[in-house]
Amino acid sequence: MSNKHLSTDAYKGVRDFYPEDAAIQQYIFSTWAKTAESFGFERYDASILEPSDLYKAKGAENEEMVNEQTYTFTDRGDREVTLRPEMTPTVARMVAGRARALSFPLRWYSIPNCFRYERMQRGRLREFWQLNCDIFGTTDHTADVEMIALAYQILIDFGATPDMFEIRVNDRRLMNRLYIALGVPEETIPAITNLNDRRDKIDDQSYRTELKKILGGNGLLVEEIIMMLDKSDEQTDVVIALSELGITNVVFDKSLARGFDYYTGTVFEVRDTSPDNNRALLGGGRYDNLTGLFGGDPIPGIGFGMGDVTMRDFLETHKLLPENLQKTTSTVVAIPADSTFNLEAHKAAKVIRDSGISVTTDIGTKKLGKKISDASDKGAEYIIVVGEDEVSSQSFSLKNLSTGEETSGPINKIIESL
Amino acid sequence: MSNKHLSTDAYKGVRDFYPEDAAIQQYIFSTWAKTAESFGFERYDASILEPSDLYKAKGAENEEMVNEQTYTFTDRGDREVTLRPEMTPTVARMVAGRARALSFPLRWYSIPNCFRYERMQRGRLREFWQLNCDIFGTTDHTADVEMIALAYQILIDFGATPDMFEIRVNDRRLMNRLYIALGVPEETIPAITNLNDRRDKIDDQSYRTELKKILGGNGLLVEEIIMMLDKSDEQTDVVIALSELGITNVVFDKSLARGFDYYTGTVFEVRDTSPDNNRALLGGGRYDNLTGLFGGDPIPGIGFGMGDVTMRDFLETHKLLPENLQKTTSTVVAIPADSTFNLEAHKAAKVIRDSGISVTTDIGTKKLGKKISDASDKGAEYIIVVGEDEVSSQSFSLKNLSTGEETSGPINKIIESL
Repeated sequence: MSNKHLSTDAYKGVRDFYPEDAAIQQYIFSTWAKTAESFGFERYDASILEPSDLYKAKGAENEEMVNEQTYTFTDRGDREVTLRPEMTPTVARMVAGRARALSFPLRWYSIPNCFRYERMQRGRLREFWQLNCDIFGTTDHTADVEMIALAYQILIDFGATPDMFEIRVNDRRLMNRLYIALGVPEETIPAITNLNDRRDKIDDQSYRTELKKILGGNGLLVEEIIMMLDKSDEQTDVVIALSELGITNVVFDKSLARGFDYYTGTVFEVRDTSPDNNRALLGGGRYDNLTGLFGGDPIPGIGFGMGDVTMRDFLETHKLLPENLQKTTSTVVAIPADSTFNLEAHKAAKVIRDSGISVTTDIGTKKLGKKISDASDKGAEYIIVVGEDEVSSQSFSLKNLSTGEETSGPINKIIESL
Repeated sequence: MSNKHLSTDAYKGVRDFYPEDAAIQQYIFSTWAKTAESFGFERYDASILEPSDLYKAKGAENEEMVNEQTYTFTDRGDREVTLRPEMTPTVARMVAGRARALSFPLRWYSIPNCFRYERMQRGRLREFWQLNCDIFGTTDHTADVEMIALAYQILIDFGATPDMFEIRVNDRRLMNRLYIALGVPEETIPAITNLNDRRDKIDDQSYRTELKKILGGNGLLVEEIIMMLDKSDEQTDVVIALSELGITNVVFDKSLARGFDYYTGTVFEVRDTSPDNNRALLGGGRYDNLTGLFGGDPIPGIGFGMGDVTMRDFLETHKLLPENLQKTTSTVVAIPADSTFNLEAHKAAKVIRDSGISVTTDIGTKKLGKKISDASDKGAEYIIVVGEDEVSSQSFSLKNLSTGEETSGPINKIIESL
């Protein structure tokens, strides 16, 4: 054993969740789960480890992504394995694996952690958790509507108001038709879509230059495309249906691309409208051929992903985090008068706990007065002191810390006042 | 893109959690969390990735464990990183990192996943989840009592009765004293403890042979040690205190070792008493010097870990899993008469959901009758059919699937009967 001390730092790019942070994390996870379940979504889960082939399957571009942006290693059995960078390939694998036994349409959700090896910045860490919701097995456009309505409802259930966020929607099929009507060569459309994905991050001149390059120097077509993108005349069935559901903070945005190349129809994102946090909170879209990679019939689907880091930033920006999340979960603190009464305090705690009330026994070595103020600081509602008098008489006093009221008597009597 | 289809299998040694398994997993996690919180334990969490040094720190034996039994790789920044094989080093790191700011004693719990690269067998997979509970910052023996009482209560809260499991307790300090009183050389005690850890897995003759080897051939001492181990005359404060709390399915077992070499006092485990599943469900112990590796004052602690795989085996062996876990979580299923009414069904669903009731909208393409029987199979309590008559009259019928009763009227009226 060496004398050099170990560092207490977490591994680079990941987070430790001390109780105050874990409480926020659990609040986010439980709100996500509750809203998804209120729409009838069922939870699934899988391991963080996946065979690397799952991400390489779609060609060279993906192979580069796996090599450069994921945590990939070779295990002792000489298998190449990757820490999942996103959940969609995993859920496609699982759905394809039981396609015959499952009853479609499926509504599935999960809250996995994912790893990406990338440059760190605000809202981006190397490990993040993500709510993933998908509907599999229908091409009905009301499934697209439902997914966006679910995303909307999640934010509402966190206490947000519709002015705090904006839903942007586009449709890749419609865009294909519009490009082709303008005479854009079909093979250039993926490159244009990719460029549009960065349009709000680059200046107008660079955008025009890159677009012109993609189009082989056709400057007239560049102008026609920009005019088409900026004209807000179209609406889709999805946008109209959302307004019928009372969801009106929706913009049809022809520049919206969303990165993943597996999207084939509706794409959407939700953006924070605060200038302090002007980012996408979630993104999703329709994919009609993901499960095809595994053989069998393709199963259409639509899904979205929503990260924990951007979610927390949104809640903090709009002051939506409840204040008492970090308090102790115990209703009662049982306090031994001194440490010789620790076991007696545990006994009293057990009787109270058996009636369904949470109790912490403070077996620390601080003075009685300090233990009482600690209990109050941690948000306990009641204390019960256990000392010589209480044990010999078997009469205890339950003190309400907000009103100062005391109830005295045998332990199984005083719990009735709780 | 190749034509070879991707496999739908999960990575070797890990599990996919389809909804029926995820529901069981969530039931186990939420019961663990609820009972731990009822004792005042606060949740923490950390990343699955840790610097490999965290596990190598305690010397060559650990270095071997890291090299042979963990998932360890070198990242793109040339850091050696390990998928945590257990949570205790992580929680020790976190406690040491904020030792000055934290208020002791701490009660912390977590439900992390862990990875071990080992031969697979019943109850052992390469990835498992584990409830970890620890009390830091006290040497008081009633903390040991509380930890065992918590373990007991978790099983009771799953519906177990005390005859279904047995708590075994030992104390390494006491064992050291007993060995030394017999004249056992102090330097051989760790090897004897290790051997005892395997005593119930090897035959008596092999045990004697190995023990004799450790003791340099002293056959008399072998017999004296075995006699001492098998004599059940001692009790510890911990066992006596447990019986005062009403916990009597406790055995003081001098052969009990528990693998980890960081234990320094009380060690304990809970075993399933069923002959079909005769294994340890959880194990734990007191460690008085874990945080010392990080510098600063050592902080004493006691903790245990309880795995999800063995927990589920226990619940299945004793038929303790609730039956309806795998049912849908929705109370109501909204059923469009045909797919042209999908959006109208979503609208009705939204009104019902806004009153706090979960609703699934069945936008599948099956016939109406099949959709109704599907809703019933999935455990829905009510259905509401949305078709031409309902939409034109804005009068809907809510049907109770168990009683057959129907309530009709405008949507915001009929939800009052829910």
